[in-house]
Amino acid sequence: MKIKQLLCAAVSAAALLSGCAKSEMSRTIVTDVPERPAGQEDMVGFAAEPIDTVRVGVIGLGMRGAEGAFRLGKVPGAKVVAVCDIDSSRVNRVVARMEADGYGKVDGYSGSADAWKELADRSDIDLVYVVTDWKNHTPMALYAMEHGKHVAVEVPAASTLDEIWALVNTSERTRRHCMMLENCVYDFFEMNTLNMAQQGLFGEVLHTEGSYIHNLDEFWPYYWDNWRLDFNRERRGDVYPTHGVGPACQLLDIHRGDRMETLVSMDTKAVNGPAAWEKMFGERPESFANGDHTMTMIRTANGKTIHIQHDVVNPRPYSRMYQLTGTKGFANKYPVEQYAFEPAQLDSAAMPDHQNLTAHGAITAEQQAALLDKYTHPIIKEVGEVARQVGGHGGMDYIMDYRLIYCLRNGLPLDMDVYDLAEWCCLTPLGELSIENGNAPVEVPDFTRGGWQKLDGYRHAFVK
Amino acid sequence: MKIKQLLCAAVSAAALLSGCAKSEMSRTIVTDVPERPAGQEDMVGFAAEPIDTVRVGVIGLGMRGAEGAFRLGKVPGAKVVAVCDIDSSRVNRVVARMEADGYGKVDGYSGSADAWKELADRSDIDLVYVVTDWKNHTPMALYAMEHGKHVAVEVPAASTLDEIWALVNTSERTRRHCMMLENCVYDFFEMNTLNMAQQGLFGEVLHTEGSYIHNLDEFWPYYWDNWRLDFNRERRGDVYPTHGVGPACQLLDIHRGDRMETLVSMDTKAVNGPAAWEKMFGERPESFANGDHTMTMIRTANGKTIHIQHDVVNPRPYSRMYQLTGTKGFANKYPVEQYAFEPAQLDSAAMPDHQNLTAHGAITAEQQAALLDKYTHPIIKEVGEVARQVGGHGGMDYIMDYRLIYCLRNGLPLDMDVYDLAEWCCLTPLGELSIENGNAPVEVPDFTRGGWQKLDGYRHAFVK
Repeated sequence: MKIKQLLCAAVSAAALLSGCAKSEMSRTIVTDVPERPAGQEDMVGFAAEPIDTVRVGVIGLGMRGAEGAFRLGKVPGAKVVAVCDIDSSRVNRVVARMEADGYGKVDGYSGSADAWKELADRSDIDLVYVVTDWKNHTPMALYAMEHGKHVAVEVPAASTLDEIWALVNTSERTRRHCMMLENCVYDFFEMNTLNMAQQGLFGEVLHTEGSYIHNLDEFWPYYWDNWRLDFNRERRGDVYPTHGVGPACQLLDIHRGDRMETLVSMDTKAVNGPAAWEKMFGERPESFANGDHTMTMIRTANGKTIHIQHDVVNPRPYSRMYQLTGTKGFANKYPVEQYAFEPAQLDSAAMPDHQNLTAHGAITAEQQAALLDKYTHPIIKEVGEVARQVGGHGGMDYIMDYRLIYCLRNGLPLDMDVYDLAEWCCLTPLGELSIENGNAPVEVPDFTRGGWQKLDGYRHAFVK
Repeated sequence: MKIKQLLCAAVSAAALLSGCAKSEMSRTIVTDVPERPAGQEDMVGFAAEPIDTVRVGVIGLGMRGAEGAFRLGKVPGAKVVAVCDIDSSRVNRVVARMEADGYGKVDGYSGSADAWKELADRSDIDLVYVVTDWKNHTPMALYAMEHGKHVAVEVPAASTLDEIWALVNTSERTRRHCMMLENCVYDFFEMNTLNMAQQGLFGEVLHTEGSYIHNLDEFWPYYWDNWRLDFNRERRGDVYPTHGVGPACQLLDIHRGDRMETLVSMDTKAVNGPAAWEKMFGERPESFANGDHTMTMIRTANGKTIHIQHDVVNPRPYSRMYQLTGTKGFANKYPVEQYAFEPAQLDSAAMPDHQNLTAHGAITAEQQAALLDKYTHPIIKEVGEVARQVGGHGGMDYIMDYRLIYCLRNGLPLDMDVYDLAEWCCLTPLGELSIENGNAPVEVPDFTRGGWQKLDGYRHAFVK
């Protein structure tokens, strides 16, 4: 992706020499936004024809994919038709288990690096569900859409701007859904807190935070061909931002009335990253790009901010941070779940001892229980118990699959569209640009190319 | 303060027109660093002649100053000689109370806006202790040093680069201590954690965080002439950074082997700030500069990062964040005190059940108690109990005063020098520059002007 130097190209040499850069724009890196081809429309609010039984093909049966296939097998209205993996033993294991569990016949594909195309070529599949290593996400999603399938892709669906724009353009042109499988927006605290936010309990939400802080020391040996640590070795910036930024963006109605405008990233040097590589291979890597700890700040058109962090190598307790600051309330998930409010925000009918609240402390556990009882998200009410039983990161994976199938069956817009995918994934390439240019501000493209104000706030779709 | 546009001034017009800014430097704002006058030396490691009894004059007897005078009256080796305030009733109250408590005679100054100069002119005062509104900090500190006094100044000691450089130059030229009264570096968790860090328990500390998150709704009416809310109305950026950045910098040995190089700030729009002003005055302010929530990211020469936040208007639980990420351990103070380590970092003699630690969770309360017992900071051991009895934010204010007087009496370098003051205060004007230039990176000046590598690590001084 070439970088335009907007002002420097636009202003005269004389002006530059007399002091350059009086305007802030000159310091901001602006990337190319490809023009939308004539006749192509955006996918904001897009809904496809209802599908009675959603026939699914799963590509990738590693850590996440096999459980994904089993989980999808339990979602009402979904039918796992085929599975694929480069490793045939994985395919055989999944097919055998599903048959043994009484699920019926599931076709398996393997035997070559292109075997997945046979799956995506089939005419009796509605949805391709991609759970491979990161580098294959975009090519597979593009191919599936080109062959008439809706597609759901694991996080991150894309890691370069070229990939992101290809997914946006292909989804718009083929009129196929392209949803990223961001599961953390479906976790219980996040869903219930989003419901409170949408009902105005926090006033205007001004600032949100999220992160992926997860020490992967124990996991590094289990990624096929070392793809994940190699990715960290090759790329600087936040390479895994979506679990943090997804919930943060939903709270801020991103591309439903607001949009991210400016992004700045900063990282530490790489210490434990290369040490992990050395532990795997017995020698220091020649180079290791990814800093141990990466931060990203984002500002929106409406003057809100987002703060995102990434750290997979230092010895820290697991945290997705998940925090919001509103004009009338506050929520925090890690390391402890907390809410704080202006007293006026809580009505006494729902809350014991509401006179006892101040703006200086979190509400009590008893108050929090009463609050959650009142503001449980409708989706959690509907499917929360089943989700906990099926499992998958405590249930959120099942809720994600359930909602994907529910919306496809009912011809509703999906909870996450291709612009969510674009916005959440763009932190990787844009943050890399920022870091490699001395922590310069980078303009976040409007991936909707003009459609970000069509909808008034983020909402899940339901059958009326 | 004029801003140099280094590269834009340096490179040719042709180079600019052909694409400008290939180098990251062109996007970084660089401020003027005044040349050190010939014959003037830095204050790194500076120690003055020992003072048997430190005679103190206190200027400002508002919220913080009166308690400061009483507290100093209890520190061994300190003698409060005089106090001053623009409000004579405050002076009378403090003088009367100290006499009633058997402290002896304390001279009072008031009656004019310049009364404090009479105090600073006295030849029988060693230390001027400035606890006024922010705008008077620097002028009073400069005057006191020019009149031969060491000076201790409340936070923030300065809010513009001109003020900061004036304090640095005046301290260097007059060879007088200029210490900022940053008390939060003396809080118990911070001191003990610093001790652990200095003993290598966290490996290499890569990232630190700090903040001032304190809803001031109840306090706004009590600032003399509304100075504090007016300051927020007039200035964008983190106007109160020192409680967050002070402890963060001590952990990173700033100007003792490392230094802050690049800073970027970002804020939300102002919503609750102007609402607080309206509540005070019954009408909307014409403008209100300070965003409700402000973030600052800083990168050091050695590739470490710092993250700082400011929020005094939204309904959040009090937090100074205080967090460190090291290659072998992690510490967090808010909302709960937590430590996490690689198992190898903890020896079984000191720690019960050390086999049970993983890099994915915080250590238990029992383990934490054992850890704190082993790593209690020597200063806490010496004076912690007395400090808790005297009080002042739970004891940290007393420890701060105790250390200030201890070092002056023993002719030791103070715990914080004029460069700490400069580095911690510069977040305000540099962050403002960043925000007003579209969140551009700003170069943090080397306030030591070459002396930041003289000392190898931050250490408190003790009598041998």
